[in-house]
Amino acid sequence: MNTLLLEPHNGVLHITLNRPANRNAMSLEMVNELRAVLAQLDSQVRALVISGAGGHFCAGADVKDMVTAGGKAQLQALNRAFGTLLQAVEAVPQVVIVVLQGAVLGGGFGLACVSDIAIADHKAQFGLPETSLGLLPAQIAPFVVKRIGLTQARRLALTAARFDGVEAQRLGVVHFAESDAQALAERLDEVLGQVLQCAPGANGRTKALLLASADEPLEAVLDRGAQWFAEAVTGVEGIEGTQAFVQKRKPRWCK
Amino acid sequence: MNTLLLEPHNGVLHITLNRPANRNAMSLEMVNELRAVLAQLDSQVRALVISGAGGHFCAGADVKDMVTAGGKAQLQALNRAFGTLLQAVEAVPQVVIVVLQGAVLGGGFGLACVSDIAIADHKAQFGLPETSLGLLPAQIAPFVVKRIGLTQARRLALTAARFDGVEAQRLGVVHFAESDAQALAERLDEVLGQVLQCAPGANGRTKALLLASADEPLEAVLDRGAQWFAEAVTGVEGIEGTQAFVQKRKPRWCK
Amino acid sequence: MNTLLLEPHNGVLHITLNRPANRNAMSLEMVNELRAVLAQLDSQVRALVISGAGGHFCAGADVKDMVTAGGKAQLQALNRAFGTLLQAVEAVPQVVIVVLQGAVLGGGFGLACVSDIAIADHKAQFGLPETSLGLLPAQIAPFVVKRIGLTQARRLALTAARFDGVEAQRLGVVHFAESDAQALAERLDEVLGQVLQCAPGANGRTKALLLASADEPLEAVLDRGAQWFAEAVTGVEGIEGTQAFVQKRKPRWCK
Repeated sequence: MNTLLLEPHNGVLHITLNRPANRNAMSLEMVNELRAVLAQLDSQVRALVISGAGGHFCAGADVKDMVTAGGKAQLQALNRAFGTLLQAVEAVPQVVIVVLQGAVLGGGFGLACVSDIAIADHKAQFGLPETSLGLLPAQIAPFVVKRIGLTQARRLALTAARFDGVEAQRLGVVHFAESDAQALAERLDEVLGQVLQCAPGANGRTKALLLASADEPLEAVLDRGAQWFAEAVTGVEGIEGTQAFVQKRKPRWCK
Repeated sequence: MNTLLLEPHNGVLHITLNRPANRNAMSLEMVNELRAVLAQLDSQVRALVISGAGGHFCAGADVKDMVTAGGKAQLQALNRAFGTLLQAVEAVPQVVIVVLQGAVLGGGFGLACVSDIAIADHKAQFGLPETSLGLLPAQIAPFVVKRIGLTQARRLALTAARFDGVEAQRLGVVHFAESDAQALAERLDEVLGQVLQCAPGANGRTKALLLASADEPLEAVLDRGAQWFAEAVTGVEGIEGTQAFVQKRKPRWCK
Repeated sequence: MNTLLLEPHNGVLHITLNRPANRNAMSLEMVNELRAVLAQLDSQVRALVISGAGGHFCAGADVKDMVTAGGKAQLQALNRAFGTLLQAVEAVPQVVIVVLQGAVLGGGFGLACVSDIAIADHKAQFGLPETSLGLLPAQIAPFVVKRIGLTQARRLALTAARFDGVEAQRLGVVHFAESDAQALAERLDEVLGQVLQCAPGANGRTKALLLASADEPLEAVLDRGAQWFAEAVTGVEGIEGTQAFVQKRKPRWCK
């Protein structure tokens, strides 16, 4: 991997966006490497933690790729590839956690919006600068709407306003805003501890039901949910979980 | 009724979940009794107030039912029946108010999510513990997404995190967090007072339009709304309401 | 125009609802004049600022129109016309800013809900009084749900509760609550400054993508977004914006 650092540890894959000289701008190479990582995840991996090297999360798309992309068709494909990456990150059964410091702009903001749990430094800088450059947050806008709703998304996208981690929490972009690197690390530990108390298969199917709830008719989701519930109760995790509960011990999946 | 206390008073039906020895865990019998109550509501009832006996709202599903349910098909039916109850609570034309103390977990959390107005004690304990037991919040997850959006729902469901009434208000699960039983009772009085100033038929149809707005195309909702508006203006309530307004008196439906 | 004051200035059209003796109640004439203004907007106009004369934004529908409307069919058409206006305001490519003081009730609340950016006086009075009069917020309810979600909308509509600008910001109805007229004016200047830094064509298409994100399947929005992105990069605004960025100057569209 040229653009990513990968560090598996205790069922968690830590992914560091690693182009610090460019504030981890999302090059096409980085998009492709992230997609390759996601395609190879196995069920041993229960959570992903995505962060950035050098004090920034991700400052957006890499303008160099746009310059060298050539014609309109290539630009369109380049742009769409980023949306496909965001769809893929959202769809993984693993719990996706992002740790946000420094620049969280454009495509970096979009990536944050497909996480399950987002932890921000209170001074992190969020924003959608695209239209101030004559461009569109084309692949990002739908995920921002899904993240924080149309009302807040429209102000942010149509003003290109910057805002910090505290405001990001107020708007619902992130779940936690922390006051320094130490507090950020402690919050990540706490969240990972909670996630690793939950059964991985149950979490994966719950995540699928949650995502479906935002898109599909209620009736269909409830029907599928009931089927999966019955499978869970009678499956390995359900039996272990209820036995552990009765025996007042931790289930085997706890770490 | 074995599991419920019912107390009609002044156009309001007070329903108390009454299995205090089990923190009002939602047994199949309770599900069936609640469905029976809803099926028999008449238009004299303008609001439902649902609370729990013994200091808890509802600690979730009753595990005993799961143990005795038998095979997968029975478990699936048992689980789906709870989702059907939540759909029925959401669909009643009456205003549904929940008063939340103590445990508001799993299915109890789900029930809170289909209320029109939720009032919580600041120390009430909310959470979705399912995946920490190897199970799924299968019938609950869609209603949590509908209640507070995907962004907050995914963190809560995938971490099994507990949170209190103050946090529940911040997340939008409840409308009010009160600091003691006295304040809770006063808030309930205030809210009931407001609800009983509103015309019951108009409230029922408005609730139907609100629910449709979350599911149906805008155009269809606006068309139906215009038809219902014309019927309201020319109907008994609309005539009484506008006359009362002109005559500077309270309309007849006020209590 | 009998009911509106129009003042174009520096790419911004300032529209003042001007029936102060009626707290700018939304008469059929005002609905028609607003629709006429929207139909004639050209691309020189980059933003609309809508406010009310005499210290109020808009106290709702004009009851006189209802009295003179005649039968059910006329009432239905009258009501639906207001919904059509709200759809038209929402759909304009311009950035729509509302400045909210005094009464923001019923239809006035609905109009606020289709703005891109809403700035309120902290003492402004919001509410949906319809059902307390035996009527329905029929054309407004869907836009309130879209604005702040079902959870908050149902409480407001079914209690007819009044709330102020601070609460409106907390609920997400407005983006800013300001403590006096001076602060309101300064906030409007700030927001207009931000909007006028953004390329008008890019903002118009971004707004269309945001609105589509709330209604259409994700895949379709991402595909269209990629096409529009490629057109933006190779179009007049994209070329000017990236050149200005490289040359460290402001793009031509900045005001």
